[in-house]
Amino acid sequence: MRLADATWTDVRDADVDVAFIPVGSTEQHGPHAPLGTDTLDAVAVAEAGAAAYEAATGEGASEVVVAPPIPVGVAEEHRAFAGTMWVSPDTFRAYVREAAESLPHHGVDRVVFVNGHGGNVEALAEVARRFSRDPDHDGYAVAFTWFEAVGDHAGDMGHAGPLETALLRATNPDLVREDRVPDAREGAAARWGEWVSGVNLAHDSDAFTENGVVGDPSAGDAERGRELLDLASDALAELATAIVERESI
Amino acid sequence: MRLADATWTDVRDADVDVAFIPVGSTEQHGPHAPLGTDTLDAVAVAEAGAAAYEAATGEGASEVVVAPPIPVGVAEEHRAFAGTMWVSPDTFRAYVREAAESLPHHGVDRVVFVNGHGGNVEALAEVARRFSRDPDHDGYAVAFTWFEAVGDHAGDMGHAGPLETALLRATNPDLVREDRVPDAREGAAARWGEWVSGVNLAHDSDAFTENGVVGDPSAGDAERGRELLDLASDALAELATAIVERESI
Amino acid sequence: MRLADATWTDVRDADVDVAFIPVGSTEQHGPHAPLGTDTLDAVAVAEAGAAAYEAATGEGASEVVVAPPIPVGVAEEHRAFAGTMWVSPDTFRAYVREAAESLPHHGVDRVVFVNGHGGNVEALAEVARRFSRDPDHDGYAVAFTWFEAVGDHAGDMGHAGPLETALLRATNPDLVREDRVPDAREGAAARWGEWVSGVNLAHDSDAFTENGVVGDPSAGDAERGRELLDLASDALAELATAIVERESI
Amino acid sequence: MRLADATWTDVRDADVDVAFIPVGSTEQHGPHAPLGTDTLDAVAVAEAGAAAYEAATGEGASEVVVAPPIPVGVAEEHRAFAGTMWVSPDTFRAYVREAAESLPHHGVDRVVFVNGHGGNVEALAEVARRFSRDPDHDGYAVAFTWFEAVGDHAGDMGHAGPLETALLRATNPDLVREDRVPDAREGAAARWGEWVSGVNLAHDSDAFTENGVVGDPSAGDAERGRELLDLASDALAELATAIVERESI
Amino acid sequence: MRLADATWTDVRDADVDVAFIPVGSTEQHGPHAPLGTDTLDAVAVAEAGAAAYEAATGEGASEVVVAPPIPVGVAEEHRAFAGTMWVSPDTFRAYVREAAESLPHHGVDRVVFVNGHGGNVEALAEVARRFSRDPDHDGYAVAFTWFEAVGDHAGDMGHAGPLETALLRATNPDLVREDRVPDAREGAAARWGEWVSGVNLAHDSDAFTENGVVGDPSAGDAERGRELLDLASDALAELATAIVERESI
Amino acid sequence: MRLADATWTDVRDADVDVAFIPVGSTEQHGPHAPLGTDTLDAVAVAEAGAAAYEAATGEGASEVVVAPPIPVGVAEEHRAFAGTMWVSPDTFRAYVREAAESLPHHGVDRVVFVNGHGGNVEALAEVARRFSRDPDHDGYAVAFTWFEAVGDHAGDMGHAGPLETALLRATNPDLVREDRVPDAREGAAARWGEWVSGVNLAHDSDAFTENGVVGDPSAGDAERGRELLDLASDALAELATAIVERESI
Repeated sequence: MRLADATWTDVRDADVDVAFIPVGSTEQHGPHAPLGTDTLDAVAVAEAGAAAYEAATGEGASEVVVAPPIPVGVAEEHRAFAGTMWVSPDTFRAYVREAAESLPHHGVDRVVFVNGHGGNVEALAEVARRFSRDPDHDGYAVAFTWFEAVGDHAGDMGHAGPLETALLRATNPDLVREDRVPDAREGAAARWGEWVSGVNLAHDSDAFTENGVVGDPSAGDAERGRELLDLASDALAELATAIVERESI
Repeated sequence: MRLADATWTDVRDADVDVAFIPVGSTEQHGPHAPLGTDTLDAVAVAEAGAAAYEAATGEGASEVVVAPPIPVGVAEEHRAFAGTMWVSPDTFRAYVREAAESLPHHGVDRVVFVNGHGGNVEALAEVARRFSRDPDHDGYAVAFTWFEAVGDHAGDMGHAGPLETALLRATNPDLVREDRVPDAREGAAARWGEWVSGVNLAHDSDAFTENGVVGDPSAGDAERGRELLDLASDALAELATAIVERESI
Repeated sequence: MRLADATWTDVRDADVDVAFIPVGSTEQHGPHAPLGTDTLDAVAVAEAGAAAYEAATGEGASEVVVAPPIPVGVAEEHRAFAGTMWVSPDTFRAYVREAAESLPHHGVDRVVFVNGHGGNVEALAEVARRFSRDPDHDGYAVAFTWFEAVGDHAGDMGHAGPLETALLRATNPDLVREDRVPDAREGAAARWGEWVSGVNLAHDSDAFTENGVVGDPSAGDAERGRELLDLASDALAELATAIVERESI
Repeated sequence: MRLADATWTDVRDADVDVAFIPVGSTEQHGPHAPLGTDTLDAVAVAEAGAAAYEAATGEGASEVVVAPPIPVGVAEEHRAFAGTMWVSPDTFRAYVREAAESLPHHGVDRVVFVNGHGGNVEALAEVARRFSRDPDHDGYAVAFTWFEAVGDHAGDMGHAGPLETALLRATNPDLVREDRVPDAREGAAARWGEWVSGVNLAHDSDAFTENGVVGDPSAGDAERGRELLDLASDALAELATAIVERESI
Repeated sequence: MRLADATWTDVRDADVDVAFIPVGSTEQHGPHAPLGTDTLDAVAVAEAGAAAYEAATGEGASEVVVAPPIPVGVAEEHRAFAGTMWVSPDTFRAYVREAAESLPHHGVDRVVFVNGHGGNVEALAEVARRFSRDPDHDGYAVAFTWFEAVGDHAGDMGHAGPLETALLRATNPDLVREDRVPDAREGAAARWGEWVSGVNLAHDSDAFTENGVVGDPSAGDAERGRELLDLASDALAELATAIVERESI
Repeated sequence: MRLADATWTDVRDADVDVAFIPVGSTEQHGPHAPLGTDTLDAVAVAEAGAAAYEAATGEGASEVVVAPPIPVGVAEEHRAFAGTMWVSPDTFRAYVREAAESLPHHGVDRVVFVNGHGGNVEALAEVARRFSRDPDHDGYAVAFTWFEAVGDHAGDMGHAGPLETALLRATNPDLVREDRVPDAREGAAARWGEWVSGVNLAHDSDAFTENGVVGDPSAGDAERGRELLDLASDALAELATAIVERESI
């Protein structure tokens, strides 16, 4: 159930097992991919994951609520690139956590943050822990980042690179500027960050990529995108099953 | 320019006069209208307002950036109704303000919050003031609520009543459950709140409306919705012109 | 009972129905009216309202506690005028709310904020809601602004204009500089703010008034002030009766 | 100049050397003295101190602004006694500091907090330091507590005891319930707190005083009160002279 | 039991009466004494106090947990001197309080902050009160500053002066640069601060001491240091006994 | 230079390139290893790293300041085990960041957080970013966690397992309870957490380890510990060289 499209009576009458909250970002994704990439990808995975979960548990037996996506995240690292929006980690955590806390108020006490942005990972993990330990409600949450749950593909991640571009090609093809992909590829960095002794010295992305891209955006076609969507949504459905069954935190 | 669909190079290359940030809510809108009503309406008005502004200033002369909508607002007053999400006013203000502050960082220093929810009005006014007085950037912002800028219609506002339902009928007709409108109408309150000496005694909406509706949702057809959209978007375009020209705060 | 003048044993022994907390401001009120106008007016209305309430409920039957006034409010909009003091809305809300929370600790769980300053209105409404929803005590509060409860007079409000000056003439005549009233009138703005599309573009008052005055301060004599006081205090007593009787929030 | 009674033009036209901000408390002072004792005393000392300063510097040469008193302080230690109001130290510090920061905005950059309550001492010292080190303005502040500046009398302080009662007898005699003084004296503690190894074990006052009084309230008549007022106001004037002349913090 | 050296099973199996949390500072102590003086002294007193307490209550009967020391405190007043570290009072209070709150979680609900730095005194007193009043746990805490509990010696305190240097000579003699003591003495101030009307005008220490020292560091030999250690640790043991026995706060 | 042992004049006279701030935790490390393990390890690596750096840059050429260790971290995940202390991530970040900000005040504007606890990793990364982007000073910081910089050993990490126990055996052998190691090993978990779809479902460690241990503590002798210390300290020295030479963030 897409929460924004449902009515309050729909939610009241449904048998909801778990909620997915897509969490994105509005940030540079090179010259070829839209600023909303992370949000679009998070929504696509959340909706496909909900369908997979509902299919697995049987027609009408139970439902997944998919909340509207959080559009602005922890993305100050891309501030050198026009159009990038961000909030501080403190504010991001508060906004996501409080929004999520509305759900146990209505009896929906299992929550997965379905994340599309690397810069949100740490903050969402912290939100999930705090939410789960909160003595004021019975909620339990975990944070899931789709590109960490796509098997061997994960090693190709980059930024606006093979995986993200492929997923867009499968789900939002009109938003990929194919004519700019050669340029995007040429100006791309091979790797995220500048590393010494296991530490990334570069706090901002413009220190290592001129056009914002990391990895080769031509290395992922729509077919690969569909495969990524299947892998991620299956993993998400499996995760949902596990947390619905889990008792302790 | 819809920011989420644009690339960072698009933003860099554009001549942007002003940004619109749609601000919605995910909250009960009776048995007939979706939880996302306020967000949908804010987006519709922001996009139509941007088109009106751009049309008025001439082809390609300048552009309006329309940010992705903020989906969860100050809506605790509806907490009794399933599916309603909210954050505290403090967190809402911080999230909106910090997201907006990304824009002057990129040289976009005129911002209008295009709001679709009554509960956000006070908080957004405060954000606009603080943003405009901030000595750390040159930004200037104002808060615009679409249903306060529709002339004489404004008196019919209610909640999930004539105006909001009409605007949905014009912009998102599939999301209005027409078959439930008679029930929605029957259980509706005539007026928002319980008033004594000019003060609303009812902090939560379930104190005065059984199904969440205020006003008659059958009193606004799609035609009226189109008229509302025209009125609101013209008012927004006019406002944008005024703040782009304005110098002091 | 004026709380500051009573002893703790007086409070312990009284049968207190409700507390009034006057909330003012220390801010410019033109060349003719004192910086403390809003505080003086709030105190005058609170005390007259308490008398009216006590008279209505019968001699000694029950009492109203009138707290000492909060002297500095949300008034940054007047910062261009010397002597104006202000705090941030966050700090104002915290101070007022925490001070009020002392009262349910002593069993006084009905509170009215009696406000004299337009800039405090939004913040006090928020405090009243949060106070009333707080699960840690049984308190219930509402915010009352005297010049919104004076019938048709309300349309004349302005700033340091007819109503405020009239009320001062009735309650604190020595503090009105009658000799400066002609100047005050001459340099006054006709209306608060600069409006486009239902939005005030002027965040600070010096954008539209040269001497800080809005409205004609000579248009309200002491007689009118006494009428305002009667109207406001009767409205406040009625409000108090309503919230004392009210059960849910 | 009493700020609340002055107009903004008065402040603009004055030659102001320093501002005094009286800081009080609304808290139990035994069965015989009012809850507002600390505020009343702070105001009395601030006004007498201002007069002493102005007299010393010569007629019209320069002025002291006396702000309206802060009425609620750090007084949770008296929460067991009805009518006591308090805010958290965090909120108190923010409120006092921000209110004071309005003054350097108008060019008044020397501030003395004139304090009447022991529980505020630590918090005000912290505010004064932070205010003075703030790189955003040129303000410099110190915190003065009247009963620490009365020579040998200081040893008799107590609570609602000899000194406070005497000062009230000199300045607000109608508010002392003389008929309850014998009872007040009888139920009084001899000393504030319960001490072991230089540490007070009693965080709340009801642990050691049954009626809230510490010290003998009959041991200070109006004459002693006048002497206290002279001592404290002279000390305050001397302090003001010193900080007006001081350059570094 | 030194907590950092113990295992969790040791703590589980022990009969713990009370915890001591040493609180120090990393700040200038003249040219002759180390920046860690306050931490070293707090640890020395806490450990000697624990031994004294355990000796008094009998072998193995009960234990004192000595937590690892808090190394950075409220010391901005020494910021002019190289190497001084500090945090804001707000952050200091939060860090100490939250760390302490771990202890009642494990059933250790009596806590003494054993402090070695004057700048921490006010903040720790506030932490102790808030900790003790917290309705979420049964903890009760007090703040103890060693140099306030050494009888008549206390009058000699200064800064990096007789007492602190003496205690170091007794406990950490290698860290006292004896060859620099003559210089330290020569450049020392006689008294902490610059006082007018009972108020210290100097918020920062470089306003009154050129090399950071207050008092004569040659006036306290190791013997005096041992006496100080005995006095302070006996006082601390006595305090611990009192709070372990105490019921109300 | 160990900061706590140095005097302020030592720091003033030194040529300091970089500061290391050891960050530990006081938390369960099984029945055989002390609660202070993470702090001890962080200090050992920081001091060895400083020596390695100074050796590499040449005698007396430049120095590393090693600050006193932060003893309590983000460790609520171990709250089920007695003696574990923790603070909230918000407070931890504020404490570490503010303490670090003292250093650029003295001209030391390169900082490495030398971390010994997995639970601190995310929070320290965030602190390093915020510190480095702060426009109020020139500081630049990175976060280094020793067990991520020991080459292939890193895969054996666990908790109180092979690596941490080995490093203790090399640096603090007396604190390892060798007689309890067989028990520690027996009750140990094989792996940290309970994983589904790349997500750890277990927010608290007692969900998957009965005695707190993860990995085999007998699998790392003192020799291995020395090798770990060499690897980690060399990596740290190399990192320090890199950030001292680096210009942009």
